Amino acid sequence: MEDLMSKIISLAKRRGFVFPSSEIYGGFGSCYDYGPLGVEMKNNIKRSWWKEMTQLQENIVGLDAAILMNPKVWQASGHLTAGFADELVECKKCHHRFRKDFLEKDKCPDCGGQLTESRKFNLMMKTFIGALEDEAAVTYLRAETCQGIYVNFLNVLNSSRSKIPFGIAQVGKAFRNEITPGNFIYRTREFEQMEMQWFCHPKEADKFFEYWKETRMKWYLNLGIKKENLRFREVAKEELAHYAKRAVDIEYKFPFGWKEIEGIHNRGDWDLSNHSKNSGQKLEYLDEETKEKYYPYIIETSAGADRSFLTFLINAYQEVKGGRTKTTKAVKESEILLEIHKDLAPVKAAVLPLVKNKPELVKRAKEVYELLKTNFVCQYDEVDSIGRRYRRQDEIGTLFAITIDFETLEKKDVTLRDRDTMKQERIKIDDLVGIINQKLNA
Amino acid sequence: MEDLMSKIISLAKRRGFVFPSSEIYGGFGSCYDYGPLGVEMKNNIKRSWWKEMTQLQENIVGLDAAILMNPKVWQASGHLTAGFADELVECKKCHHRFRKDFLEKDKCPDCGGQLTESRKFNLMMKTFIGALEDEAAVTYLRAETCQGIYVNFLNVLNSSRSKIPFGIAQVGKAFRNEITPGNFIYRTREFEQMEMQWFCHPKEADKFFEYWKETRMKWYLNLGIKKENLRFREVAKEELAHYAKRAVDIEYKFPFGWKEIEGIHNRGDWDLSNHSKNSGQKLEYLDEETKEKYYPYIIETSAGADRSFLTFLINAYQEVKGGRTKTTKAVKESEILLEIHKDLAPVKAAVLPLVKNKPELVKRAKEVYELLKTNFVCQYDEVDSIGRRYRRQDEIGTLFAITIDFETLEKKDVTLRDRDTMKQERIKIDDLVGIINQKLNA
Repeated sequence: MEDLMSKIISLAKRRGFVFPSSEIYGGFGSCYDYGPLGVEMKNNIKRSWWKEMTQLQENIVGLDAAILMNPKVWQASGHLTAGFADELVECKKCHHRFRKDFLEKDKCPDCGGQLTESRKFNLMMKTFIGALEDEAAVTYLRAETCQGIYVNFLNVLNSSRSKIPFGIAQVGKAFRNEITPGNFIYRTREFEQMEMQWFCHPKEADKFFEYWKETRMKWYLNLGIKKENLRFREVAKEELAHYAKRAVDIEYKFPFGWKEIEGIHNRGDWDLSNHSKNSGQKLEYLDEETKEKYYPYIIETSAGADRSFLTFLINAYQEVKGGRTKTTKAVKESEILLEIHKDLAPVKAAVLPLVKNKPELVKRAKEVYELLKTNFVCQYDEVDSIGRRYRRQDEIGTLFAITIDFETLEKKDVTLRDRDTMKQERIKIDDLVGIINQKLNA
Repeated sequence: MEDLMSKIISLAKRRGFVFPSSEIYGGFGSCYDYGPLGVEMKNNIKRSWWKEMTQLQENIVGLDAAILMNPKVWQASGHLTAGFADELVECKKCHHRFRKDFLEKDKCPDCGGQLTESRKFNLMMKTFIGALEDEAAVTYLRAETCQGIYVNFLNVLNSSRSKIPFGIAQVGKAFRNEITPGNFIYRTREFEQMEMQWFCHPKEADKFFEYWKETRMKWYLNLGIKKENLRFREVAKEELAHYAKRAVDIEYKFPFGWKEIEGIHNRGDWDLSNHSKNSGQKLEYLDEETKEKYYPYIIETSAGADRSFLTFLINAYQEVKGGRTKTTKAVKESEILLEIHKDLAPVKAAVLPLVKNKPELVKRAKEVYELLKTNFVCQYDEVDSIGRRYRRQDEIGTLFAITIDFETLEKKDVTLRDRDTMKQERIKIDDLVGIINQKLNA
């Protein structure tokens, strides 16, 4: 199964999904950059989540808070104290450092040396703002996006005229100084979260917890993640964070094991009451009908955009032994097919003139490309045999390959090849946008 | 004109476009958060830029590089040396600090005290990664997104099979430790850039410079910015950054003066040749036809997403004396109208039952809302008189107000009110999505 990860990482780099960051300088601390196809796919994931969690939800609004916040926020949230820290051990021989809870035995996994006692290591990343680098200027890169939601609770409530129950959704970067990042883009120091905080009456918290748990699981299933590779994991009482009343993880079966891709948390009234205490502003809700005043409970759905990306990529990855494009010369080795959901595919259609040395074909193909590109993300490709170009598009999950051939010149129609069925239809150029739109919205 | 800024800032907060960050803790260092309407509008701006600069451009691909990079990148780019620093002076009396080039006289603008000699103050924001806070672990928050493009030049070239001339586009956060941030979201320490780097043959650089300069200006004009408030400013030779061969700013006439909103730069081969020298990797291009090998010249278009946001907001802001919704009770004070371009409007349509105490009207209105929301960002609003609700929607730039009245129940049609013309048409519910789509794509 480790083999599968190497193949995914290699495909990701070769085809421009994910590159190691600063690679020409030897890379950097498990940071990754999204390439031309990666950024389209990641944007599609974020857009799908955003539509699902804001546009389609009458009672959820969006927010985009800054990464830099007043450090008092992190004082109040408990992130600057021992609670938000990992147990760090060091090898006395090779001086490598490890997270204690990730070690299987008491000896250094790198050299077998003896390990030190563990000490707490805070995960917040520090920086300085203002003209002097002193204590007064210290702040932190946010370690979770949700704090931006809590401190804006009143601003959002007042400006959006929301009524309980309602939610605030946000997509954005967060930073944690992980001691042992790893597994490609699964655990990185810089990462992107997609979080929704649902504010409700304490008595309704259990009901909404169940609702959001099921709703979030459906999101992955609707986007094609195989059911047998998804599961819920109830987080045990003793594992819960200090603020949490209950937590359930959605886990995916990665090649490196079952791992969390999203957490659903009942945070109680901890965040709002605690920020009220620390800021002196009452982050309460007044029910105008019942006149009841209370701290709402928060049900949080917290997903990782990078983890989702990895999940969708692994789920889509297929190797077809002996090749699938048998219309051309048979291929001995296996071919890669990325069977990714239509909403997430980075390229929707590729326009391919049958040959590149016939100016009238190329001209017509360019016209079709110009027509399509205002509607969808498209590629134009005229290099190599048509079979080879099909394979290149299958490998990146392009939904439709559109071939312009000599018949096109006469009949003004093209061949539309479907990625998954490999069925080929003749379609009039005038109908092309409509038909593709229909298939995309089906 | 300062008055206009206060009105914009007040509207932005009251209606949920922009909030001061960490406001309950007294705010923080000129950081701002985008509220429910702000995040929609900012996403629309970024999406419009992205479509224009990638999807519609056969020769431009996207990228999303990490904020954290190997510090060698910043060593090589010159950002860690004196070049990327402001001249800082301090008042000997009140100890406030100022950017020297922003001061009009030699005395402290806050207390009239004497100022110190100026010293260089580097704008890079430092942080630490890894388990120890020492020199080895120092890195920086990127001060510009373009470096992520340069260091990925070969990765993008190889994975996307691009040929010169081609471009790489990117949207992302950058950070500068400004001594004197200000003018609301115009100059902030955390900001978002929308940059495109165009790689071309040195001989074609001047031609493409002109092309991109005109093309970028058109983007603002096409999105409705008034022509008389936009201009080019040729940056004088002595003002040019050390790497720049030529620079032209696109300036907007803000209430606080003409200020840059985008820069078009001819960076020559400085970036690629310099990173080659520092990394030991040759970031060259081989023209397969002519066999010529060279460092491409770079034409950069560098826009600010936050500055664009402020520009579009100010440009859209209108006060209509005496009120515009004269169908209901005459309004004495002036009304606010946000005449923002249809692509950027945060809410496309609002669904309004004529009254809220008739269950059949409310039910039908909810059905119309459910129908529309899968297609567009919509609001449902049943509170207050219909005139007041129109005003509320005008104030946030909602394009269409859809009223469900008693006739709707019989004839299955609704009133569609156009924000700009205030014209009201009766439309069949079955035709609503089609007609709105048509207007949005017109």
